[in-house]
Amino acid sequence: MSLTGRGHRARDLGIVIGEHEPGEHNAITDVPGVRVGHCTVLREPAIRTGVTAIVPGDVGPHAPLPAGMFAGNGHGKLVGATQLAELGLIEAPVVLTATLSAFRAADAVVSWMLARPDCADVRTFNPVVGECNDGYLSDIRARPLGEAQVLAAIDGAAPGPVPEGCVGAGTGTGALGFKAGVGTASRVLDLADGPVTLGALVQANFGGTLRVLGSTVTPASLGLAEPAAPDVGSCMVVLATDAPLDSRRLTRLARRAVFALGRVGASYSHGSGDYGIAFSVRTDGAPLPDTTLSPLFEAALDVVEEAVLNSLFTATTMTGVDGRTLHAIPLPRLMKLLGRSGPPLPGD
Amino acid sequence: MSLTGRGHRARDLGIVIGEHEPGEHNAITDVPGVRVGHCTVLREPAIRTGVTAIVPGDVGPHAPLPAGMFAGNGHGKLVGATQLAELGLIEAPVVLTATLSAFRAADAVVSWMLARPDCADVRTFNPVVGECNDGYLSDIRARPLGEAQVLAAIDGAAPGPVPEGCVGAGTGTGALGFKAGVGTASRVLDLADGPVTLGALVQANFGGTLRVLGSTVTPASLGLAEPAAPDVGSCMVVLATDAPLDSRRLTRLARRAVFALGRVGASYSHGSGDYGIAFSVRTDGAPLPDTTLSPLFEAALDVVEEAVLNSLFTATTMTGVDGRTLHAIPLPRLMKLLGRSGPPLPGD
Amino acid sequence: MSLTGRGHRARDLGIVIGEHEPGEHNAITDVPGVRVGHCTVLREPAIRTGVTAIVPGDVGPHAPLPAGMFAGNGHGKLVGATQLAELGLIEAPVVLTATLSAFRAADAVVSWMLARPDCADVRTFNPVVGECNDGYLSDIRARPLGEAQVLAAIDGAAPGPVPEGCVGAGTGTGALGFKAGVGTASRVLDLADGPVTLGALVQANFGGTLRVLGSTVTPASLGLAEPAAPDVGSCMVVLATDAPLDSRRLTRLARRAVFALGRVGASYSHGSGDYGIAFSVRTDGAPLPDTTLSPLFEAALDVVEEAVLNSLFTATTMTGVDGRTLHAIPLPRLMKLLGRSGPPLPGD
Amino acid sequence: MSLTGRGHRARDLGIVIGEHEPGEHNAITDVPGVRVGHCTVLREPAIRTGVTAIVPGDVGPHAPLPAGMFAGNGHGKLVGATQLAELGLIEAPVVLTATLSAFRAADAVVSWMLARPDCADVRTFNPVVGECNDGYLSDIRARPLGEAQVLAAIDGAAPGPVPEGCVGAGTGTGALGFKAGVGTASRVLDLADGPVTLGALVQANFGGTLRVLGSTVTPASLGLAEPAAPDVGSCMVVLATDAPLDSRRLTRLARRAVFALGRVGASYSHGSGDYGIAFSVRTDGAPLPDTTLSPLFEAALDVVEEAVLNSLFTATTMTGVDGRTLHAIPLPRLMKLLGRSGPPLPGD
Repeated sequence: MSLTGRGHRARDLGIVIGEHEPGEHNAITDVPGVRVGHCTVLREPAIRTGVTAIVPGDVGPHAPLPAGMFAGNGHGKLVGATQLAELGLIEAPVVLTATLSAFRAADAVVSWMLARPDCADVRTFNPVVGECNDGYLSDIRARPLGEAQVLAAIDGAAPGPVPEGCVGAGTGTGALGFKAGVGTASRVLDLADGPVTLGALVQANFGGTLRVLGSTVTPASLGLAEPAAPDVGSCMVVLATDAPLDSRRLTRLARRAVFALGRVGASYSHGSGDYGIAFSVRTDGAPLPDTTLSPLFEAALDVVEEAVLNSLFTATTMTGVDGRTLHAIPLPRLMKLLGRSGPPLPGD
Repeated sequence: MSLTGRGHRARDLGIVIGEHEPGEHNAITDVPGVRVGHCTVLREPAIRTGVTAIVPGDVGPHAPLPAGMFAGNGHGKLVGATQLAELGLIEAPVVLTATLSAFRAADAVVSWMLARPDCADVRTFNPVVGECNDGYLSDIRARPLGEAQVLAAIDGAAPGPVPEGCVGAGTGTGALGFKAGVGTASRVLDLADGPVTLGALVQANFGGTLRVLGSTVTPASLGLAEPAAPDVGSCMVVLATDAPLDSRRLTRLARRAVFALGRVGASYSHGSGDYGIAFSVRTDGAPLPDTTLSPLFEAALDVVEEAVLNSLFTATTMTGVDGRTLHAIPLPRLMKLLGRSGPPLPGD
Repeated sequence: MSLTGRGHRARDLGIVIGEHEPGEHNAITDVPGVRVGHCTVLREPAIRTGVTAIVPGDVGPHAPLPAGMFAGNGHGKLVGATQLAELGLIEAPVVLTATLSAFRAADAVVSWMLARPDCADVRTFNPVVGECNDGYLSDIRARPLGEAQVLAAIDGAAPGPVPEGCVGAGTGTGALGFKAGVGTASRVLDLADGPVTLGALVQANFGGTLRVLGSTVTPASLGLAEPAAPDVGSCMVVLATDAPLDSRRLTRLARRAVFALGRVGASYSHGSGDYGIAFSVRTDGAPLPDTTLSPLFEAALDVVEEAVLNSLFTATTMTGVDGRTLHAIPLPRLMKLLGRSGPPLPGD
Repeated sequence: MSLTGRGHRARDLGIVIGEHEPGEHNAITDVPGVRVGHCTVLREPAIRTGVTAIVPGDVGPHAPLPAGMFAGNGHGKLVGATQLAELGLIEAPVVLTATLSAFRAADAVVSWMLARPDCADVRTFNPVVGECNDGYLSDIRARPLGEAQVLAAIDGAAPGPVPEGCVGAGTGTGALGFKAGVGTASRVLDLADGPVTLGALVQANFGGTLRVLGSTVTPASLGLAEPAAPDVGSCMVVLATDAPLDSRRLTRLARRAVFALGRVGASYSHGSGDYGIAFSVRTDGAPLPDTTLSPLFEAALDVVEEAVLNSLFTATTMTGVDGRTLHAIPLPRLMKLLGRSGPPLPGD
């Protein structure tokens, strides 16, 4: 069962993606040193939003990490993209939030940097902030997020199990016709030089028709009303690994983050900002040869697919601005539709 | 049944992808003026290769067409990429062939241009040639293709039904553990300004695990031996449309060509050169607004998914160099696996 | 003489770049509808910064303009890059400021949008903010800019002559060893379909060795001390035109904005964020054929070269944080070095 | 004096670019292991073309080298671009030739690979071939180059002094209104970890107005007729170094190759295919930190500027197809125009 009690994760339901095994928590935090923090902002009547921070070790201007990115569909406001690509690194936690709040979130990451004792001499800095549009459920124009929330997410980042579903940057998001949110997953691979871990965290907010283990799953097929969802989705995917990879290889990996969305039925619509960001916590050692990367690429597809499912299965039904509702997937009905038996689930 | 009698297409089997209707031939040739030609080269003991040409109208240096492209995984030798991107157009038929023959194919397209009466003054020219590596079944180092074969494919290009499976550039290719080849499909969409047609042609040669209507289909699950397939695949996808689109929008469309491969289980492995090329036969009229493109994007996903399935279902088992064999999907067993009834099929 | 009395523009000194004629004001504001606003922030002892806004007509989410961009050296925090590239448009004034203030500037542009009566329904928005690092003279870590300053620059934007030198986003910047700032220039070209105007505005802050009409000009050659300039420069170049161009063509134009910096001696060093942004105020009419663009490309080189010279010649010596000084080019000595006579200049 | 007796190199004339010292031969061959070979094809009445090969060590599929590239203006037919970018390496000599012959040149490089004893198992291969359009002087439509010429250039590649001017791929090219051709130069830099060498080789064929040491130099200013040059130029620049750099850093370096053309007056016109390719002969050792790259970037600007000048100064006047002539720069007149004394030069 999920940490937050919001539902079950895919594996709890017997839904297993790919052949590789997950790490201890089946979360991006299985990558050594990676912590995740959420700040969830729920305010009546119409604020359903938040911030999620992925914090690798003591990342900072003096401890940058190799990184790559891919804009699968650049209808998004990813802050920090050009410098990340030019220098092939991140020098700050990766922060996710709501569209119109992305810039004040980036400014807050600057504040975070300025306050670091080891940054007293720093005069240039590249925060990386991604966003999804949670305006279907939240009053996005209110920009209800500020420095306090961003710093809370960064400072509160923790290792271990990651709260999923309607938390942090996923508080108000929806995907594939259902309530979604944040999801995560991981894999451990045995490569020639030893085991490496790959983790994903998604902020799921995109359109399309859900495919679970090959079955098409629509709200109607589960007895729910279809949302009148506007074409304002997006999906931010963050991949972390401890495999030694440089930015070119991480850019290749980041592409798979976006490619994976097709597996769960993404429509890659005009208005969906679909981005992959990948970083490695390893800064020493020669990068893995490209010819050995295919298992890692495959794991990236698996881990993102599972993270999206987790974001859906752990989310709960939510009503927000203007009385709009996004329904969580009713898991017993889903299992019935899939013709599968699962664990005992709360009554439908 | 397929034109060449090699098998059945997805729709013949009741396998329907997406909600939009196909065009008359469910082929890239449904796009007005688009013709397809194949030159198949089978030579014992070990040549299993060929050329496929997609010929839009009277395309040429004096009649270029708007085009875009996307290198999903650039482990491929696409000729003409940088000029296509810079100028946003193609000025020649798009030619597909085998890896090591791509350059002499490009040189043959130059010959084709030089021989055109309307090109007597042309002194610069950008052929566009894609390739897949058919070396699992064909003696690729022999480079058995020359000007004659390329010109035969271009000059023999015809409208109407398109031969699929083990023909032309798909003669020796395999995908997802099975014999594959060329596949095509189309959709007709009712947009605000009237109907538009979108067609795809794929040269399928990539790795992964096949997903059909959500079911996982491996050679083993159909009672076949797994091929010892080397990681040298690729997938070339060509999209054509009569929707008025400029190169930026066509580039967006071309990305979906690669994204679609995830739906059928592509592993996007290191060695797979996965490219999308999209062109429009319309050279007049303002481009469609981006905000209206989502249905076209969705159709691109559908049409590529179906074209890949067609390339698999119409292919036939082939043995080639060094006695290696790629098995075609046994359709009756597939239908049984899927739990579907289909049309009467030849005995398994 | 410059509007602000800070010095002379290149043409005032008889220094003419290229063969085409400038527009009425030899400024980006010669492009119809384009206005420029500055907010200069000088605060003792150590604040030397500001904001510059380029405001084309009534640009906004409902009146976007075609645009392109190029990151010549992406060591910069350009906000809005990926969506600008994906959709090929700007939907807001282009704002320039200091590095660490870029994100609050972007947030201020969101405020500007939210306050527009015609934007009551807008829930997604892509501000475009460029930056240079003015930390050599200004206490950049103070982030002394906020919403008020950004809105003042946008709301105060005016047509006609543009204040240059140490104003707005150029208040604290230096280039090529001298005090620099904002500079602008324009050209009018007679194309086949009639005259078009091309204007540039630069925020000049980059390293290298100045070349004026082919002569190398160093601080030492003018009797000045060399600055101990850290490698934290950058150059933001904004091009505007009323030529009908789509985003692909504007991207080609934007590349020339960066290429032009080589003419004046830019060193394109590691730490220099060199970006070109180009937009057109024309939203109707078919784009100019690429084959007719060479004169426009050449004018882009000319206009940027002259804008950089103007930014240098109109700047005044400034002392800032930690007592560091950047000297303006002493124009009489420059003229002597160049072996040219000019207009009467204030005593050296 | 130049190796081929065709004229003088820039340094022979006292024209020195930048502050760093050249290597032993002031040529790309100063980079350890790099050889250059030319095959010049002169055939009356109208063939003025050739092939140039840059051959680093024993480069091949089993000994690839890290590489990067930049398409400054992609109106060119660079073969091998997408795989070079994806994998960040070259696995073959870099070959330069004439536009319409580029594809058969690439095919010849495949032949070269197939014939290598260490390549008996190779079934995929990415030749890299650049081109310029020498059609102003040569009958480009004749495609007078074949496998023999390409292999002659590769097999004849030698270390040491490099023939410049009207040789190899520069046989029929012209730049900036004058006869040009191949040029080369090098620099040795003392970096923290010891000396590194950077070399450039250019195939110069682009438009614009020549700037030498800041002076504008036109054919008219030297008493020559202006060529009726069509807009079909291009410039291929190849950079080689023994500094340890990965593909991302080499891509940054490659951009400077194109940026440098502005210094000599390039017009970067629509039809000019301006490409930079950079490779390192070092395959071991950690890449240099980005923060140390500025001197290398500056050297790249210098070395390309000087290589272009060398290509011009060593070229000789040539008459070709349709009786068109491109005049070499008359060096005595140039020196007079520049107001410089130089070495004794042959009478004007």
